[in-house]
Amino acid sequence: MNIEGHPTRTIRPAADGHGVDIIDQTRLPHTLEWARLGTLESAAAAIKDMKVRGAPLIGATAAYGMALAIGEDASDARLEHAYKVLYATRPTAVNLRWALDEMRRALAPLPAARRRAAAWARAAAICDEDVAICSAIGDHGLALIRAAWDRRRAGGADRVNILTHCNAGWLATVDWGTATAPIYKAHDAGIPVHVWVDETRPRNQGASLTARELSWHGVPHTVVVDNAGGHLMQHGMVDLCIVGTDRTTAGGDVANKIGTYLKALAAKDNGLPFYVALPGPTVDWTIANGLRDIPIEQRAAREVTHIAGMDEGGVVREVRLTPEGSAAANYGFDVTPGRLVTALITERGVCPASRAGLIGLYPEHRNAAAE
Amino acid sequence: MNIEGHPTRTIRPAADGHGVDIIDQTRLPHTLEWARLGTLESAAAAIKDMKVRGAPLIGATAAYGMALAIGEDASDARLEHAYKVLYATRPTAVNLRWALDEMRRALAPLPAARRRAAAWARAAAICDEDVAICSAIGDHGLALIRAAWDRRRAGGADRVNILTHCNAGWLATVDWGTATAPIYKAHDAGIPVHVWVDETRPRNQGASLTARELSWHGVPHTVVVDNAGGHLMQHGMVDLCIVGTDRTTAGGDVANKIGTYLKALAAKDNGLPFYVALPGPTVDWTIANGLRDIPIEQRAAREVTHIAGMDEGGVVREVRLTPEGSAAANYGFDVTPGRLVTALITERGVCPASRAGLIGLYPEHRNAAAE
Repeated sequence: MNIEGHPTRTIRPAADGHGVDIIDQTRLPHTLEWARLGTLESAAAAIKDMKVRGAPLIGATAAYGMALAIGEDASDARLEHAYKVLYATRPTAVNLRWALDEMRRALAPLPAARRRAAAWARAAAICDEDVAICSAIGDHGLALIRAAWDRRRAGGADRVNILTHCNAGWLATVDWGTATAPIYKAHDAGIPVHVWVDETRPRNQGASLTARELSWHGVPHTVVVDNAGGHLMQHGMVDLCIVGTDRTTAGGDVANKIGTYLKALAAKDNGLPFYVALPGPTVDWTIANGLRDIPIEQRAAREVTHIAGMDEGGVVREVRLTPEGSAAANYGFDVTPGRLVTALITERGVCPASRAGLIGLYPEHRNAAAE
Repeated sequence: MNIEGHPTRTIRPAADGHGVDIIDQTRLPHTLEWARLGTLESAAAAIKDMKVRGAPLIGATAAYGMALAIGEDASDARLEHAYKVLYATRPTAVNLRWALDEMRRALAPLPAARRRAAAWARAAAICDEDVAICSAIGDHGLALIRAAWDRRRAGGADRVNILTHCNAGWLATVDWGTATAPIYKAHDAGIPVHVWVDETRPRNQGASLTARELSWHGVPHTVVVDNAGGHLMQHGMVDLCIVGTDRTTAGGDVANKIGTYLKALAAKDNGLPFYVALPGPTVDWTIANGLRDIPIEQRAAREVTHIAGMDEGGVVREVRLTPEGSAAANYGFDVTPGRLVTALITERGVCPASRAGLIGLYPEHRNAAAE
């Protein structure tokens, strides 16, 4: 998406051919700082230290990390070493493993002399594929926003209001994002979208990342606390919701950032559509019931008890919010049952959040999909 | 409630008879600091600067503010002046006005020479009345918690889990609190309660005030972000919810801190009881439909974009969370329709959140209550 009017990807090969540039997302939202990854180790550190985050962007960074490793030494041993080092950064990230497997499959059969060029080409292709998937999600979601806007405009409204939670945005992918792709497409098509951005405690990916990228691209938006969405929906200030997902079951249940379920309940109670945008490859066809089968990780309590921000002097500081002696719990995700999801928006089209809906779009999983 | 084992009210006449001591709540949760109010002006400033907050405690402070004013000069002019100064601090606070009216009614007919003693006596009585109301709410709510605990214990549980939002606690009243009164009563009765404390963005009254007072009294509790409650309820980690209310309609709709509605929806979706604790005098009998008739104030956007906490050096600092250029909106309250409220807990007993339920407990409002 755009930064100050310039179309920009979140990861890009350096102009001099000696590395890859990424946005250091740990510096957001206050500072835009590009970091040069020149070695396998720097790529691994960027993933581990969350300078890059979001499944697609982690996969893309890992792919380039393999290319950087091969550029230094194209041996089989180096290839395996790079795989292990990168895999160890986030062993639970499905996309990371997928990208590493792709790279190994493409490179292992080649003679060492041809691996460097092939690695850069395959990493670039992985990025382009992600962009194509997100763009297709955007096109399918655009139709839903356009329909909502047509209804609103007929009623005299001057904008269509979309609520989103967390950051399933450009900054989590190579370009477009997933939940944000329809929003960017609608904005670029001249539809007057306005986005309610849930701040998304405890890590505030909405208030920091989603607000930042919408602002860069020029999409009108307003940050609200996570508590506000129900009130906005009760009072006609939301027309539709679009969120992303970390894991979708074959039955259409959706695990996403903690708090998503509460917004889906409010949308249902107010008769508003609640959409979930996802790349088909993120569906976990081996499970059907998200509440039963998706374990929810507990993260560090410190994410709840402390928060970082920029002080008056421009210094980013962490401050403690809770009294000493009060414990905190920090569940990372919740599961929104498919019954509360109006539809899934995928790169292949829009479908009901159900086994039948998903298999309609992905018939190749008909036999394997859990029930 | 207790601070380090000592029963403590949030406001108390100074031992030397020359003022009133309050907890400076702007210093919480990090520092416990008592402030001496010795003049009308200091009492007014304490209300205006939110050193005291919560409707009952504001009323109590205003009553003592009148007593302080009368102690300096017991004339009619001084009485009217004190009324005006105190009323202007928070002109929308219903309890403030009620307490001032009470004081004026008690003092105006008296000769000046008798006003000082009467003022201190009436202010103390206002405090005692608030304590009695909260204590009665606690007794009625205790029965509900005891029943939930009996069911849980029969199922093998070792504690009963209560979720609350914001601070309808001891710190908002003179003692006991409203939503917290049943919790303190249950804890003191030996029932193993554990409280999930919603942090309650944007002002974090849960993470700072509720956590602080539960910790002082020794009630086991865990702070969670506002996003977490739905997940907790889906997984059997909540047995009942109890919240307070700023304004309850004659129809049983409840205006409370923003985000309350989302928790009520989640309770309903998971078949859990959602209770609202309130003193009968806070019912607004003139309106029935909360969504239609209760205007929701917008507060300063800065409460969303900035937050204060204690840094590593022990200094309380404010930091900015959002990027420059992103707008924020800040709705203070939302309305939970009576259909989502299992019951109201009042000083007269427990009743359905409906006109019939309320009139059953408060028959004196039968004719005036809006429909």
